[in-house]
Amino acid sequence: MIEYDALIVGAGILGLSTAYHIKRTNPNAEVLIIDKLNSSGQGNTAKSAAAFRCIFSSSTNYTLANSSVEFYRHIQEDIGIELGLQWLGYLWLLDGANYRETVQVFKKLEKTLNLEYREYGEKDLADKLQLQTDLTKDEEAQIMGLKNILGGIFIPKAGVMNDVDCLVKFYQNEFMKLNGKIEYGVKAEKLLVEPNKPLEMPGEPFFWQYARVAGVKTDRGQVRARKTILVSGAWMPTLLDSVGIESYIKPKKRQFFTLPASNSGLKQLLKSKGFNSLGCMPFTILPNIRIYIRPFPKEQSYWVGYADEFPRAFNLEENPQPEKNFYEFGIYQVLTKYFPQFRDVRTSSASAGLYEVNTLDGHPVIFEENDLIVVGGASGSGITKADSIGRISAALYNQEEYAHLYGQTKFKVSDLGIRKRSTEREKLIL
Amino acid sequence: MIEYDALIVGAGILGLSTAYHIKRTNPNAEVLIIDKLNSSGQGNTAKSAAAFRCIFSSSTNYTLANSSVEFYRHIQEDIGIELGLQWLGYLWLLDGANYRETVQVFKKLEKTLNLEYREYGEKDLADKLQLQTDLTKDEEAQIMGLKNILGGIFIPKAGVMNDVDCLVKFYQNEFMKLNGKIEYGVKAEKLLVEPNKPLEMPGEPFFWQYARVAGVKTDRGQVRARKTILVSGAWMPTLLDSVGIESYIKPKKRQFFTLPASNSGLKQLLKSKGFNSLGCMPFTILPNIRIYIRPFPKEQSYWVGYADEFPRAFNLEENPQPEKNFYEFGIYQVLTKYFPQFRDVRTSSASAGLYEVNTLDGHPVIFEENDLIVVGGASGSGITKADSIGRISAALYNQEEYAHLYGQTKFKVSDLGIRKRSTEREKLIL
Repeated sequence: MIEYDALIVGAGILGLSTAYHIKRTNPNAEVLIIDKLNSSGQGNTAKSAAAFRCIFSSSTNYTLANSSVEFYRHIQEDIGIELGLQWLGYLWLLDGANYRETVQVFKKLEKTLNLEYREYGEKDLADKLQLQTDLTKDEEAQIMGLKNILGGIFIPKAGVMNDVDCLVKFYQNEFMKLNGKIEYGVKAEKLLVEPNKPLEMPGEPFFWQYARVAGVKTDRGQVRARKTILVSGAWMPTLLDSVGIESYIKPKKRQFFTLPASNSGLKQLLKSKGFNSLGCMPFTILPNIRIYIRPFPKEQSYWVGYADEFPRAFNLEENPQPEKNFYEFGIYQVLTKYFPQFRDVRTSSASAGLYEVNTLDGHPVIFEENDLIVVGGASGSGITKADSIGRISAALYNQEEYAHLYGQTKFKVSDLGIRKRSTEREKLIL
Repeated sequence: MIEYDALIVGAGILGLSTAYHIKRTNPNAEVLIIDKLNSSGQGNTAKSAAAFRCIFSSSTNYTLANSSVEFYRHIQEDIGIELGLQWLGYLWLLDGANYRETVQVFKKLEKTLNLEYREYGEKDLADKLQLQTDLTKDEEAQIMGLKNILGGIFIPKAGVMNDVDCLVKFYQNEFMKLNGKIEYGVKAEKLLVEPNKPLEMPGEPFFWQYARVAGVKTDRGQVRARKTILVSGAWMPTLLDSVGIESYIKPKKRQFFTLPASNSGLKQLLKSKGFNSLGCMPFTILPNIRIYIRPFPKEQSYWVGYADEFPRAFNLEENPQPEKNFYEFGIYQVLTKYFPQFRDVRTSSASAGLYEVNTLDGHPVIFEENDLIVVGGASGSGITKADSIGRISAALYNQEEYAHLYGQTKFKVSDLGIRKRSTEREKLIL
């Protein structure tokens, strides 16, 4: 039976990027990706908001995102492969509770990392977006604890992808061009654990033996590998629990809802001027309760979503469903207070997926234990960071101390590991 | 329906200690303990090695353990309540791989914390314990990767409890004397989550409302409380996952095996002189693969156990069973190399339980989220630290910044929390 050099479990965006960068740096290595679905990027990658941003409060996350976004720009603008990037920018709306703190975060990033951003005042925003900034006289809004919007911060280096599949196909194609292999419809059921030095005794490995992950048992037989690389997102913790490895990743349901621009107010909102060169509303985040609004100017629609916290369960649902009440009694109630244009608009579709939340610090985890490399915990910003995560995972595979991210930024691989982890707590999670 | 001031879920040793210290510091509070079993301490408390030690590498763990052990001594020697403490001491056997590092840990503890310890040389140990220290010529031992024992470190302030039930009953009785209530045979099935300010609308809480844990739903109805205190060990993560709270606690099977002193060598080993005033073998830990040997001089037997790591699963088994092969191909093989006295001895009984492992740093976690207090993660040393953990949990309940441990040590409550956690990685886990 063939022993692959690298077996990647999961053909989502992170698995593809990891596989590509491993193969790119090891052209002669036998690299196989397996995925339980029938093509790439069909799991939670397909169920994301397909947005990207260079901006995070921690310099680690910033580096991961900024370098990835620059790489995507390079692919589209220099190489000429269409990724469908639309530089709408991100607009964070701020209320009294978070205004000062958030502005400080951005000022610091401007100073240390040369981040470009613009501040918008309350009146300006009200005017540009027909935004209801003052909720003082709205009794319901007061009961709901909603605060007035005092201003906003806009980041130009951010936006959305028309179709995340372009990026998925880019990594897949590049990987295939290098003779990488992908097998679909193969489900990893169990990690194969074997002693490093087998004694050919039944019951091995015994606990006094050094043992390693030698591949995976799938529903279509064993696949053996020198290094097994688990990049299966929300499904990872189950496999890791079965061998007692902690990744600090938990699955959590995330949902978003499609709203057609079915009235003149919403049609106009899509064409909001004064933010980007596309003459479009930016990807916008409400204050405090961070509901996001992702515009689709071509499709004349919006996605709205919210990553709710307590008491939302950590739960690995096989087929998570969007909840009608989550929109109607949740998002709708808050959204229409600030954006009255959305009143009486009905959702035309809805989607739910599982995010893989890193509960340590909101950063990805990339580490190796017993020949098993674990890559995940992107906490909802996998697309934004996919290229950097792939490069760092490849550097770990190559036993290098530093990864070279796009743009020649050096990144210490162990910073995202478990034992020598070095990160700051992220404050700008959506 | 009555709303308790404090509802403690779990009548294990940590739950009892927590309940007692809350009631002691709040004599008028209505405090209820519930447990799914039919009496106290029958879960994993009963499935422990019932050993105690003041010694840990981190000063946090040391403080928790030392103060608890001093309290137990006080109860038994000053107050006169029999806890069955036997001060056998702990003997750590050391090989070349860990000798220097471990001695440094102890030297530092002696300096900073006044820890009393003694070093024993190889020949001395071989003589006192009829220990096989030199495995150089043992081909099997070489294949197994076992190293020679170079010496040992002995800590006098440590030992075993004849019966852990004495300590369980002590806390239970003290709690009852203060009019604390316990209800047995009541299983917590779900956390009750309610909005802080109910709007009396169906579907509450909505995500824009502040919500709290208002008690638990049990198989015998709701129990409501101002503060719900979850101290149910290995079973906690399931309840916490259901509301998206991360405790960094994972369940892991731990097993130990009873061996009768059925030959003269083992009878003699029990009576090893030169360690403690009881003229008994200390609680002994093998090097590298840290199998422990717990002597029962009165019963003329031993317990041996081992907390295996990779690939032992994190798994919440309802009724974990000891594994024959774990002893025969695991423990037996290593044990008999160092202690040939155990050769051909058969186990007379075996036991398995679930430890609640804290995967962050091997220290307990004590924190509050949304009126839910979480206490656990003692990582196999719950008995050793039970009193301190109870006092710190009570201080958190009382909204105090510092807990006063037995012996007047001040302990910063947030050091064991999640947000402002401050601990060092523990090196002396068994």
